[in-house]
Amino acid sequence: MNEFMRAALDEAKKGLREGGIPIGSVLVVDGVIVGRGHNRRVQQGSTIKHAEMDCLESAGRLRAATYRKSTLYSTLSPCDMCSGAVLLYGIPKVVIGENMNFKGPEEYVRDRGVDVTVLNDQECIELMSDFIEKNPGLWNEDIGQ
Amino acid sequence: MNEFMRAALDEAKKGLREGGIPIGSVLVVDGVIVGRGHNRRVQQGSTIKHAEMDCLESAGRLRAATYRKSTLYSTLSPCDMCSGAVLLYGIPKVVIGENMNFKGPEEYVRDRGVDVTVLNDQECIELMSDFIEKNPGLWNEDIGQ
Repeated sequence: MNEFMRAALDEAKKGLREGGIPIGSVLVVDGVIVGRGHNRRVQQGSTIKHAEMDCLESAGRLRAATYRKSTLYSTLSPCDMCSGAVLLYGIPKVVIGENMNFKGPEEYVRDRGVDVTVLNDQECIELMSDFIEKNPGLWNEDIGQ
Repeated sequence: MNEFMRAALDEAKKGLREGGIPIGSVLVVDGVIVGRGHNRRVQQGSTIKHAEMDCLESAGRLRAATYRKSTLYSTLSPCDMCSGAVLLYGIPKVVIGENMNFKGPEEYVRDRGVDVTVLNDQECIELMSDFIEKNPGLWNEDIGQ
């Protein structure tokens, strides 16, 4: 597994150990991780801190030119909110661990010019499917269902 | 002015007094304000706390059925990220103070089934245009430019 998806998966597992939803994300600029995050719905009672949002906040206030050369890695296909954050900041590339357990608006994001790659990595798939099986209510809450 | 847009505008002015970007938002359910927020880029160094996001977080973890009967008020047209949050949670109605200073993906949001109303209220327009004129760099940062 790519080192950056590995780092995103490490974030997801950290979230799971905290009792949270196991989704992780990192933001990479010039080959360096500048932001890391994981879903904090349970831990902070936050409805906006999906992994990608937590990651983008942790990266701090970056220049537009920096976002324009960044790549966002996420263990799970970004939802409408997180995809919107990618579009807001003009992040040109998104690498997704898997979209078997959930698929966000990938086609719309591609249509808006973003390079979207889906790995469908087995470890990412199993981490999420195990969690969803055990916590269907929490999972549905996280995706607004 | 509608009492809920007035409350959103009060949030925007609160943000301005704090030295922040004057955009405010409230979430209304059954005629009651259940969440309030304003942009906190400056105050918290947050890149994800646009007014609508701050408002949604302040409302806490709501049931899907509650979001489905809510209305989000914002003094300014929601950007891609905040529009995505509306879609994630299935908020059926958005009332926008103005879209003269910035226009988010309103048509896309309408195409996804959301009832979007734009007031183009003069007080909302002037608050934002005055701020942008005085703080162009900060404003551009907030919209990823």
